[in-house]
Amino acid sequence: MFSTDSTSTLIRALRENAPVGPSTEPHLRAVISESAAHPGRLVRARLVYAAARVHGLETALAEQLACSIEFFHLASLLLDDLPCMDDAQTRRGRPCAHRLHGEASTILASLAFINRAYALANLAFASQPPNVRVAAHTCLDACLGTAGLVGGQALDLRFAEGQGGARAVAIIAVRKTAALFWLSVVFPALLGQPSSAELRELKALCLYWGLAYQAVDDLGDVLASSIDSGKTTGRDRALNRPNLALALGVPAARRRLVRLARQATATIDRLERTHPRWEYLVTFHRTMFIGQVASLVDISAAQAA
Amino acid sequence: MFSTDSTSTLIRALRENAPVGPSTEPHLRAVISESAAHPGRLVRARLVYAAARVHGLETALAEQLACSIEFFHLASLLLDDLPCMDDAQTRRGRPCAHRLHGEASTILASLAFINRAYALANLAFASQPPNVRVAAHTCLDACLGTAGLVGGQALDLRFAEGQGGARAVAIIAVRKTAALFWLSVVFPALLGQPSSAELRELKALCLYWGLAYQAVDDLGDVLASSIDSGKTTGRDRALNRPNLALALGVPAARRRLVRLARQATATIDRLERTHPRWEYLVTFHRTMFIGQVASLVDISAAQAA
Repeated sequence: MFSTDSTSTLIRALRENAPVGPSTEPHLRAVISESAAHPGRLVRARLVYAAARVHGLETALAEQLACSIEFFHLASLLLDDLPCMDDAQTRRGRPCAHRLHGEASTILASLAFINRAYALANLAFASQPPNVRVAAHTCLDACLGTAGLVGGQALDLRFAEGQGGARAVAIIAVRKTAALFWLSVVFPALLGQPSSAELRELKALCLYWGLAYQAVDDLGDVLASSIDSGKTTGRDRALNRPNLALALGVPAARRRLVRLARQATATIDRLERTHPRWEYLVTFHRTMFIGQVASLVDISAAQAA
Repeated sequence: MFSTDSTSTLIRALRENAPVGPSTEPHLRAVISESAAHPGRLVRARLVYAAARVHGLETALAEQLACSIEFFHLASLLLDDLPCMDDAQTRRGRPCAHRLHGEASTILASLAFINRAYALANLAFASQPPNVRVAAHTCLDACLGTAGLVGGQALDLRFAEGQGGARAVAIIAVRKTAALFWLSVVFPALLGQPSSAELRELKALCLYWGLAYQAVDDLGDVLASSIDSGKTTGRDRALNRPNLALALGVPAARRRLVRLARQATATIDRLERTHPRWEYLVTFHRTMFIGQVASLVDISAAQAA
């Protein structure tokens, strides 16, 4: 399910579905093409692709749904890196798009990705029953709007104006990182019309995964160098941004991460017992999530010793 | 159809559907609330509302569809005014949002409007047959993406790098202004499942209206003062931006505008003969469009005399 097969499929699909045409302005085309060609580890796209296949979407539509969620993610990264937001210099081991092609082209590329993402998501859900489609539209609005990604980024940028602390950090992580997992897990799972008990477990899983991934990122920002992670690090302290490791200290942040991983594992175990169709989430948890968490727990433990 | 009744209805609907909640970060909320509360003349929202009602959508959904298109428009205005784009100072007689609340909050507000716009459009079309829904999604992608608004803005910003001339100006106007009319006219008309002949006329009408409105805007930028128009003017020359009056001279631009108005009128006459359901477009053309064009033709003629 999380083989290199789906990776090469998705890399091709991202190129094919990227919102560029022969008459696209060259700077705009450069940002879009280069972003789609350097998609990172495709964590979200692989999750969505697996979900869409399991829940009965045909291959072409499953690819398009995976591209949709990856395009939403790409759009948010392009904007987060802008000088007026995180003012990042590198992303995925390369200079940020706005440094290569200017801020205007970067903002427009982000919009192009969002528009195409909506078109792909809508087409993928077009043949679903009305209740599934309405649930999908509502889910996108909740994940991407002021209650989700956009609202989380706004709180993130104004973090220095507030009281700070681990609670404020967690609220922002829920809106930003957990919302993206919700998009990658709950949104495609709507195709399978989950029971309300299953939906509750899926939402809890996104919360634990999202908070854990944000803790991994926060520990990484504090502990790793820019060269290791391929993006600008050490910026959370410099810019007074929300960071669990800065709010709690590295040892306590590590303990929180271990607890979140345990809660995610317990949720995964319950889902596994409910129905075999959640197998792709179990596989993701064991092959991708646990490895990520373990490596950061090891690094932070080593640095503490 | 274009009475003050629908204006007050739409002003209320814009406020109610604006993407803000009690936990929205204050700067983000300020941009969203202030933008939604100063919506300009609501040309597009009124067109969409009239169309949605005529084509059988119930009142609440018609309001939401009108808000959707107005939110797409608002989002594009917020971004167009940014320092890295048009670097505008005023909009609708007030300081631009980025000058009051910062660039980051303005970009995030624009995203919030876009997300809510998609949610509202999708919900308004949710009960339509599959072919209508797919046509609607495809229409949104074509109007808003690299083939439409986003692509037009990219060409607009890089206009100084190209050959210039009236043809390049027209290509950009088609992608930017005509695409927004397409959203306001063709998109809601899909609810009425127009014949292919009707669809052809509707698309032609958007082209003439869009190019004419852009010509009005271009003549206004060259002829009017900032105080009259409520937004920053004289910038097209300063920034070397596409402008028909600069490319052709004011007298030739005025002649082009008169010709476009005549072509729009001929199209309207044909639509009026086809089917009574296009009456709302006839009303819009006679009460809103012709007046706009006439005033600019008069001003430019007076200045030439």
